[in-house]
Amino acid sequence: MTPFKLTDELLAEIELLIESGKDSDLKSFMQDLHYADIAEIANDLSEESATYLIKLLDSDKTSDVLIELDDDIRESILNNLSSKEIAEELEELDTDDAADIVGELPQEIVEEVISEIEDREHARDIVDLLRYDEDSAGGLMAKELVKVNENWNVLTCVKEMRAQAENVTRVHSIYVVDDDDKLKGRLSLKDLLTTSTKSPIKDIYIPKVDRVNVNEEPEEVAKIMSKYDLEAIPVVDEIGRLVGRITIDDIVDVIKEEAEKDYQLAAGISQDVEADDSIWDLTRARLPWLFLGLLGGIGAAAIMGGFEEMISKHAIIFFFTPLIAAMAGNVGVQSSAIIVQGLANDDLKGSISNRLIKEMLLAALNGLILGLVLLVFTWFWQGNFPAALAISISLVVVIIVAGIIGTFIPLFLDKRGIDPAIATGPFITTSNDIFGILIYFWIAKVILGI
Amino acid sequence: MTPFKLTDELLAEIELLIESGKDSDLKSFMQDLHYADIAEIANDLSEESATYLIKLLDSDKTSDVLIELDDDIRESILNNLSSKEIAEELEELDTDDAADIVGELPQEIVEEVISEIEDREHARDIVDLLRYDEDSAGGLMAKELVKVNENWNVLTCVKEMRAQAENVTRVHSIYVVDDDDKLKGRLSLKDLLTTSTKSPIKDIYIPKVDRVNVNEEPEEVAKIMSKYDLEAIPVVDEIGRLVGRITIDDIVDVIKEEAEKDYQLAAGISQDVEADDSIWDLTRARLPWLFLGLLGGIGAAAIMGGFEEMISKHAIIFFFTPLIAAMAGNVGVQSSAIIVQGLANDDLKGSISNRLIKEMLLAALNGLILGLVLLVFTWFWQGNFPAALAISISLVVVIIVAGIIGTFIPLFLDKRGIDPAIATGPFITTSNDIFGILIYFWIAKVILGI
Repeated sequence: MTPFKLTDELLAEIELLIESGKDSDLKSFMQDLHYADIAEIANDLSEESATYLIKLLDSDKTSDVLIELDDDIRESILNNLSSKEIAEELEELDTDDAADIVGELPQEIVEEVISEIEDREHARDIVDLLRYDEDSAGGLMAKELVKVNENWNVLTCVKEMRAQAENVTRVHSIYVVDDDDKLKGRLSLKDLLTTSTKSPIKDIYIPKVDRVNVNEEPEEVAKIMSKYDLEAIPVVDEIGRLVGRITIDDIVDVIKEEAEKDYQLAAGISQDVEADDSIWDLTRARLPWLFLGLLGGIGAAAIMGGFEEMISKHAIIFFFTPLIAAMAGNVGVQSSAIIVQGLANDDLKGSISNRLIKEMLLAALNGLILGLVLLVFTWFWQGNFPAALAISISLVVVIIVAGIIGTFIPLFLDKRGIDPAIATGPFITTSNDIFGILIYFWIAKVILGI
Repeated sequence: MTPFKLTDELLAEIELLIESGKDSDLKSFMQDLHYADIAEIANDLSEESATYLIKLLDSDKTSDVLIELDDDIRESILNNLSSKEIAEELEELDTDDAADIVGELPQEIVEEVISEIEDREHARDIVDLLRYDEDSAGGLMAKELVKVNENWNVLTCVKEMRAQAENVTRVHSIYVVDDDDKLKGRLSLKDLLTTSTKSPIKDIYIPKVDRVNVNEEPEEVAKIMSKYDLEAIPVVDEIGRLVGRITIDDIVDVIKEEAEKDYQLAAGISQDVEADDSIWDLTRARLPWLFLGLLGGIGAAAIMGGFEEMISKHAIIFFFTPLIAAMAGNVGVQSSAIIVQGLANDDLKGSISNRLIKEMLLAALNGLILGLVLLVFTWFWQGNFPAALAISISLVVVIIVAGIIGTFIPLFLDKRGIDPAIATGPFITTSNDIFGILIYFWIAKVILGI
């Protein structure tokens, strides 16, 4: 098995096959491909070509491919399917994936689609899952799990498990519940492989089992699962009843999405966009932050205009404004990024004031080194010591202030329950630009005595 | 089970118990804690306190805690253990974790520690793993896996498996090999639960199995495992022999570290640091990028100095320099972030020139909207139409150029085999500042006729 690699040539070849309607060639080509690879191909085709391609697949492969498709392609394909056909695909899927698809269907056909699902328990499970917030443990979990009653013995248990395992793609743990369906503990598959079949479940289950509440946030579930190296975690409702389980593959997606979102926010991109999205989507994601930058720039211009009398004697002060602004922005982004990451990893211990003092010391150290370099350089270059001194002292002060703002804002946002990630990027850069320039001209005015 | 939460109060309490030497209280407190929680506590204590705490633990818990500790705390604890004691801890660990610890030991004691390991096969496996590059699939894999020979029948297989499973914490798949140890396929545990025990392995194994080469990069392994939703992947050597397996929990760490590294690079932080690292470590991670910003600022000052004659008649042009520089930086960071993410996800299809044309259109659209706003505003504010026009036209041009640079640089770095993530952040901001200001003054000079 060599890994699949989608090249531009392969894509062109597939498009040609679709255009010329060579269905049997397409079918035999896709026969050997993993569904994730087929989805990757479909995502790069036009909606019509993708729909054409997917329609050629067997139903059991179609359902897996559907889950991996981009939203717009999936929507177009679902529009081309009857309610009965959609129900057939849902039948093949795990409940969590099926519920995600149902959640995307137009409201008016949901009832019809659900009623067409033949396996009524599957249908009930999907409907159960629909009521959970997408952004919660309940929205991530699947109903497929293997559970046994604490009052059974191992023999009954193994029989029941065999039956249940038929519906579960991956068996991680066997959960043990009491008569009220409350989660009591777990049995490991390994225990089952290595234990005699006679003992009652009550005596052999492990009572310690990590669990999450249905209302828990996905990021919190991700933290717990990655901290404790779990591959699946049971989900319980408000009174401790086992209602589902979350597997690590869904959590990997949560971790990746979270990281991408933070990265984009830090870069001043406010929607979830990809390089291949439309120019309009990309503009909507980028323009608001640029507009913020524009306002900041106008503010900076207004500040500089206020110090216009300085220009005739000390034009050099104006030449160094971009340097001051850039350094204020860079330091602010550095400090805030460290704090945002610390908050995301629950790594930050100690009080806010301790943290601000540390950042102040750090910024002062960086500032002094850079200020000294700048002082010597500017002095020799321009021969104007007072101006060089004013610029360098300002640099030190601005770096310290920028560091404090960069540390304080994400901590403040976090305390207020706002995602601190928005603080890193244009928001910090812009406010630090303005503060930096204001401090700079004020210090220059004092030192140069104008 | 309520989830464990490390508060400042709890930490203070533990420190008090350590100071007053209340060993039995500490022991009974830690008895019920997960090893990851104990490690979290130890990581926040001083080295001495952490060492004291860990020494109180039973040996089997110590080994698990060791793996989760920060490097400096672990080093200090290992320094306090004899070679025999270290060997005992290694005995308890999976081979991948054991090899990681051996890799950190001072060279002069490695041989002695290895020779003290009683389980010689375990020792051999650890030594085998030591020869792989840390930054490869070989460096991530563990030797613990369950494998069966294709020539066995299910009965032999189950017996062998029971024996092997004793040493494997998590059984994901049963790998099938031939007499030369070459990977042929896999059996799923589920198949084993639901299949009769009489058939020969040759007839029932699944010949399609994803695999990676020992030399594959960790990021590539992460991509494959998350794309195909795998929880474990077998690792083969150059001639296809099964040499180990990688589990998803290690890949979760790879994904998180990769995301953190990209985020820090985008923020201008070049080493892997945390908020709680020393001021010296943080300075070393941040200062180089700030120095780059300083050079950029000096360059900008030099450019502005070259247009000094403009200052008497059109000081306003100088007031808007921070705006132009900030917008150039913001647009550059936005464009490069999208490209860096697209490259990381293998999402970018099509040629470089198509991508540059798209970015140009996008930047032109954003630029025109922002330029128009700025034109109207500046014109009304200052009443100087030619200057307002010069500033606004420059803004449009600068945004387009910044977008092109932000798109081109990461693509160029990637083609050269350099991590494109370094392009987002101070590097792009600084170069765009300089280009932006140069373009700005040049356009202003042409329009204002100076």
